[in-house]
Amino acid sequence: MSKEKVVLAYSGGLDTSVILKWLENTYQYEVIAVCIDVGQGDDYSSVEEKALKTGAVKAYVIDAKEEFVSDYIFPTLKAGATYEDDYLLGTSFARPLIAQKLVEIAEKEGAVAISHGATGKGNDQVRFEATIKALNPNLKIIAPWRIWDLKSREDCIDYATQNNIPITVTKKNIYSRDQNVWHLSHEGGNLEDPWNEHDSEIYQLTVPPEKAPDSPTYVEVEFLNGVPVAVDGEKLSPLAIVETLNKVAGANGVGVIDIVENRLVGMKSRGVYETPGGTVLFQAHRSLEKLTLDRMTMSFKKIVSENYGQLVYDGLWFTPLREALDQFVDSLSQTVTGKVRVKLYKGNCTVVGASSPYSLYNEEFVTFGADEVYNQKDAEGFINLFALPLKIRAIMNEKNKK
Amino acid sequence: MSKEKVVLAYSGGLDTSVILKWLENTYQYEVIAVCIDVGQGDDYSSVEEKALKTGAVKAYVIDAKEEFVSDYIFPTLKAGATYEDDYLLGTSFARPLIAQKLVEIAEKEGAVAISHGATGKGNDQVRFEATIKALNPNLKIIAPWRIWDLKSREDCIDYATQNNIPITVTKKNIYSRDQNVWHLSHEGGNLEDPWNEHDSEIYQLTVPPEKAPDSPTYVEVEFLNGVPVAVDGEKLSPLAIVETLNKVAGANGVGVIDIVENRLVGMKSRGVYETPGGTVLFQAHRSLEKLTLDRMTMSFKKIVSENYGQLVYDGLWFTPLREALDQFVDSLSQTVTGKVRVKLYKGNCTVVGASSPYSLYNEEFVTFGADEVYNQKDAEGFINLFALPLKIRAIMNEKNKK
Amino acid sequence: MSKEKVVLAYSGGLDTSVILKWLENTYQYEVIAVCIDVGQGDDYSSVEEKALKTGAVKAYVIDAKEEFVSDYIFPTLKAGATYEDDYLLGTSFARPLIAQKLVEIAEKEGAVAISHGATGKGNDQVRFEATIKALNPNLKIIAPWRIWDLKSREDCIDYATQNNIPITVTKKNIYSRDQNVWHLSHEGGNLEDPWNEHDSEIYQLTVPPEKAPDSPTYVEVEFLNGVPVAVDGEKLSPLAIVETLNKVAGANGVGVIDIVENRLVGMKSRGVYETPGGTVLFQAHRSLEKLTLDRMTMSFKKIVSENYGQLVYDGLWFTPLREALDQFVDSLSQTVTGKVRVKLYKGNCTVVGASSPYSLYNEEFVTFGADEVYNQKDAEGFINLFALPLKIRAIMNEKNKK
Amino acid sequence: MSKEKVVLAYSGGLDTSVILKWLENTYQYEVIAVCIDVGQGDDYSSVEEKALKTGAVKAYVIDAKEEFVSDYIFPTLKAGATYEDDYLLGTSFARPLIAQKLVEIAEKEGAVAISHGATGKGNDQVRFEATIKALNPNLKIIAPWRIWDLKSREDCIDYATQNNIPITVTKKNIYSRDQNVWHLSHEGGNLEDPWNEHDSEIYQLTVPPEKAPDSPTYVEVEFLNGVPVAVDGEKLSPLAIVETLNKVAGANGVGVIDIVENRLVGMKSRGVYETPGGTVLFQAHRSLEKLTLDRMTMSFKKIVSENYGQLVYDGLWFTPLREALDQFVDSLSQTVTGKVRVKLYKGNCTVVGASSPYSLYNEEFVTFGADEVYNQKDAEGFINLFALPLKIRAIMNEKNKK
Repeated sequence: MSKEKVVLAYSGGLDTSVILKWLENTYQYEVIAVCIDVGQGDDYSSVEEKALKTGAVKAYVIDAKEEFVSDYIFPTLKAGATYEDDYLLGTSFARPLIAQKLVEIAEKEGAVAISHGATGKGNDQVRFEATIKALNPNLKIIAPWRIWDLKSREDCIDYATQNNIPITVTKKNIYSRDQNVWHLSHEGGNLEDPWNEHDSEIYQLTVPPEKAPDSPTYVEVEFLNGVPVAVDGEKLSPLAIVETLNKVAGANGVGVIDIVENRLVGMKSRGVYETPGGTVLFQAHRSLEKLTLDRMTMSFKKIVSENYGQLVYDGLWFTPLREALDQFVDSLSQTVTGKVRVKLYKGNCTVVGASSPYSLYNEEFVTFGADEVYNQKDAEGFINLFALPLKIRAIMNEKNKK
Repeated sequence: MSKEKVVLAYSGGLDTSVILKWLENTYQYEVIAVCIDVGQGDDYSSVEEKALKTGAVKAYVIDAKEEFVSDYIFPTLKAGATYEDDYLLGTSFARPLIAQKLVEIAEKEGAVAISHGATGKGNDQVRFEATIKALNPNLKIIAPWRIWDLKSREDCIDYATQNNIPITVTKKNIYSRDQNVWHLSHEGGNLEDPWNEHDSEIYQLTVPPEKAPDSPTYVEVEFLNGVPVAVDGEKLSPLAIVETLNKVAGANGVGVIDIVENRLVGMKSRGVYETPGGTVLFQAHRSLEKLTLDRMTMSFKKIVSENYGQLVYDGLWFTPLREALDQFVDSLSQTVTGKVRVKLYKGNCTVVGASSPYSLYNEEFVTFGADEVYNQKDAEGFINLFALPLKIRAIMNEKNKK
Repeated sequence: MSKEKVVLAYSGGLDTSVILKWLENTYQYEVIAVCIDVGQGDDYSSVEEKALKTGAVKAYVIDAKEEFVSDYIFPTLKAGATYEDDYLLGTSFARPLIAQKLVEIAEKEGAVAISHGATGKGNDQVRFEATIKALNPNLKIIAPWRIWDLKSREDCIDYATQNNIPITVTKKNIYSRDQNVWHLSHEGGNLEDPWNEHDSEIYQLTVPPEKAPDSPTYVEVEFLNGVPVAVDGEKLSPLAIVETLNKVAGANGVGVIDIVENRLVGMKSRGVYETPGGTVLFQAHRSLEKLTLDRMTMSFKKIVSENYGQLVYDGLWFTPLREALDQFVDSLSQTVTGKVRVKLYKGNCTVVGASSPYSLYNEEFVTFGADEVYNQKDAEGFINLFALPLKIRAIMNEKNKK
Repeated sequence: MSKEKVVLAYSGGLDTSVILKWLENTYQYEVIAVCIDVGQGDDYSSVEEKALKTGAVKAYVIDAKEEFVSDYIFPTLKAGATYEDDYLLGTSFARPLIAQKLVEIAEKEGAVAISHGATGKGNDQVRFEATIKALNPNLKIIAPWRIWDLKSREDCIDYATQNNIPITVTKKNIYSRDQNVWHLSHEGGNLEDPWNEHDSEIYQLTVPPEKAPDSPTYVEVEFLNGVPVAVDGEKLSPLAIVETLNKVAGANGVGVIDIVENRLVGMKSRGVYETPGGTVLFQAHRSLEKLTLDRMTMSFKKIVSENYGQLVYDGLWFTPLREALDQFVDSLSQTVTGKVRVKLYKGNCTVVGASSPYSLYNEEFVTFGADEVYNQKDAEGFINLFALPLKIRAIMNEKNKK
């Protein structure tokens, strides 16, 4: 009788190598190792070989970078979504994409389970598993870090040694990191005391502001229906836009945040996030919205942004609510078209100009003195009715005083 | 028979000097000129004399700066309120304070009307008049810019000359400005095309980032129940805190924004705002909240912040809703106590450390490996129920496919 | 030189007949009388003749009932929108439809202005005029009740007599009424004291509960993607569905509300509204949503419903925000398909059964004892993480006490 | 060495009697049985004896009914909170009260754990445990239904027999019920198919509408600052108000709902709830708010109501957010004072009159023709600015077409 199969989210690193073998040892599964490239910057050429050497019956390496930007990052950008005002969701939306690929391969290969290397304390386990449950409720999910007795990196190295797992012994990272085309996060180490200033030495995508050039760099981003389509006049693919802006913004010290955030699993954590290009895109996009959306629309869209951000953070990508919010955003984004000029200077990312054929800024109405289109006398009637509830209350109060 | 009295919000400048005389000429009112000092930086010593010379029967100069910070600015800061995400409401909350003083004097003096120099295109007219209506519905309101035939600065100068109004002919300002202890705004001129980059020459409280010092300045702000009480370890009055931070932040190029905003009266306008100290306080305050408020509380408080900001912007200060929101904010702010360290560097205002006796950040829960307090196995049950609606939907979809 | 033309929203009644003539007298306009039938129940056959006799150069009578239900009522129903929880928006959404038709005819006829008979105290003037401004910003708008000197019905009769306007002198209505296929409203008279119980004699679509049949009537409504498509198993057009349900619900005393509401123009008013069929549809629709939408989706949709209702009430139908909300609602409504059984009995409208192929109610999960699909042990982990913020706070409090 | 103690939420019924003994058998605990009377209607006289006979070392019976109404029910009523629009939270807010008492006794008695009889599928386990964690994070929590092997009522009876637990063998209830002074819920049985009409035979507090009296009953409720203080002119204690209204409303068939709801634990369930008096109070309270709160305040209060309801449903009573919301509500409720007249007739609960010294309904503004206080001409200016964004967009669209 043939063995059952499990699909493993595999990176080639210590943890997932150990998991690969542990799945075989513990469940007698055949392991299919799957590595989804969303821009981790790993050496993917050796991953397949490594997986097979460690015992996988099959290995996949899938480049999902362009899809990641088009189908996950840009919709979220269009939605104006952040988590708790600051976090640009870099890790969050990579997880449903990866999990979706895992499910696809599991179905194709007839696997009965999916396994991942996320720990029991973080958000990623939720994002992976919520996606799997939404896409295929019959797949078993195995999260070794919540099950096994290995408690530390040392335990993993021991397990690897005992099981002849080929690992490259690297220096222990002080920080726990996650990287993709959109961002790089740092957690742990001395960041765990929120009073400690983080050391800018940790940056990998960004130059510290102090070391950035002494004169500003200007960059122009063009949007079509809420989506970035060109940088400095050059049409680029979604991925190329992000990569281009990562370079120029990173070189100017732009895009680092350092926050305490509320994890979905009930605790606070502290992280430093580098999102150079994303910061430029986010700022540029909202400036264009300020030009093209009216007051009540902007006000409601903020509610949408807030909820969209929470959905993405919580791993609830594959839900009817997220899909419906996308429809809302797409509809409003029909006029979010135009150009935004951004100044980058030693950590500052400042929008210095915006223009749109759909601009609702109308100089004729604003200009002092020019009253052909706007009758100042209208304001009296407006105020009288706008403030009528206040006046009625004041009259009521007076009457009650007597 | 004695003449009726009007209370005029008077600054000593061209516009309100002309209004003073115009009120006498047009309505035969006795004019009581009132100048409320919220930090405009004007020469108040000569204002009284000027008012009387221009024809006022009485003149008041009232220093309301400390009250402005304590009773208007800090409650708004505590509420985390902004308008359209960026604007720190500098002009907005000065208006109800000024109007409240005007009403008090009108009642004391037995005046029948209040007059102000706000134009018919802006938000300030609404803020002044809504406040007056809320506090005394019987007072007549006279807004000359919506009534008279004067259309420009030149018309005003002509009127002044014809009526022997003592004016100092100053160079015409390109920009329309409003200043108080919290901020300085610039509108008009070449800002009226949103594609134009503003010229940093216009700054008056802030050094352009490029000219700020080459090494960072650190400042530590202490909060008690959501309210700033000390800077760098020194207890200061509310006003002194703002003034101290204005200096240090302004010197480091911090606190300038340049936005297109939606006026309450239906049009978009563009403004450049300098709020150096306010920017530091706002950033520091929200960092402290991130440490001391839990996720669902922060999420709901954002709704409150958003609505509070809109109320303030719209001039609806004296309303039961604003008062009730203050009660909400005060209750939550009981634990927003602690210290925040802020780094100021060439326009960047970055929180680098925060601590609080009420911090909900708990290292024991976060630290990888330390499982005495947090059982990773709990996560499985959590995810199973958290994602149960997704699984149920997936089961439903499967059933329907068959 | 030919005269300019005005399009008048004309009903054939006293007011609009007087307006017709007044527009000619005052502006020397040629008047095009337009009557849009949304179910007012008027005698449309004579309207055209009457308009021409009164002086109109042209008259239109347009049956817009089916369009009204399909394009205005049902989208609002799908959105779950009410105003202030109770009002089913009967008058509100008729106004943009009427105004849209007026604009179309004005453009076709080359008219320069549109005139309507709404008073200066109500919401309808806003709804008409906001629509006109949104669809054609160049059209002049004439609202005689805000302009002329006629103050009362008597003034109108006098004006009619003096100008040979053919009017039928009817008994003065105590109540001000508005009727269409969706509802009938009553305002004024002794309703103006909110302490007065309204007299059920005023009902025109509904039997008072006391006079309704002694045994209940059951009705079954079928929905497809959020839209009603059949009643008691019979496929019907949108209009026929509303008419059918109006009859059966009205006969059972269902659908009357009596509320004090906040008008957009700043005052409160009191009205009695009969919406028999609408009440059944609204109740049935939300029951089906309770079966087919998950918790977080329902919770967000409430925000949408609330905002949609406010937009409709305020006459902001032709806005990008309403269109975007429709996209959201359409997306979510893809599974709002199924049957609802409603019991009508002496004023009660009670859903007694609902079923849907997309039901998320899953008996297997609920049933006590049946634990194949739901592991009760999961709940412990869920609670431990769900309540972790409360526990962390409690630990913090304990620490501070020491 | 002395045994450790556990506090058990004890009712005297089969389940908690079995749990009592099981806690002794399994953990060698001394059990302190605690029965909190919130109006379950049980025979409390025998409970203490029964507990001791079953093996408890101590038993408490605490009458918390008055506190329940004052401190839990009325604040929620004032907040206008419901869950998913319909459910008046009858079971929800009883749980934190009970859990709070259990913690108090546990601390007084030096117990190390608290145990309850809620199952692993419902909301109550969360409400109990969240409260315990919030009030004393050191107490262990034991939920036997999530732990033991007993799967059914039969298993419990067997366990009772084997362990000499004195039980009264009663007929098996078809429905699972929960009763207190505010409500009675029914779940299970044939309700588990949402298409089934529920049988009105199950009602215990309410007469079916068909059997209610043929003439209406009127009742007048008086509120002070949002809290009910008198019925039909008679000042009554909070508890007496609820009991009085339960009787009169129940006799008129008022207050039954039948809903599918989303449990916090991720599944939908269906329940029938009887809340006769609560329905009257809820309807009366919101009518009074409609008279005394202005539009923007009502609109924001809905957001508060919605969130308050969710907090209560989810068992998050003892949280800073709930406390802050209470402060908000108390502030707004200062003018929610007055009388409401309600008509009860065969299931209908209709407000027929409301009055308040703080009423913002002002007949002078509403009345057609009376223009001393309201100038209809103001409406033009109001509409011009209110609809200005629509006009600006229309102008922009026109320009783009060219």
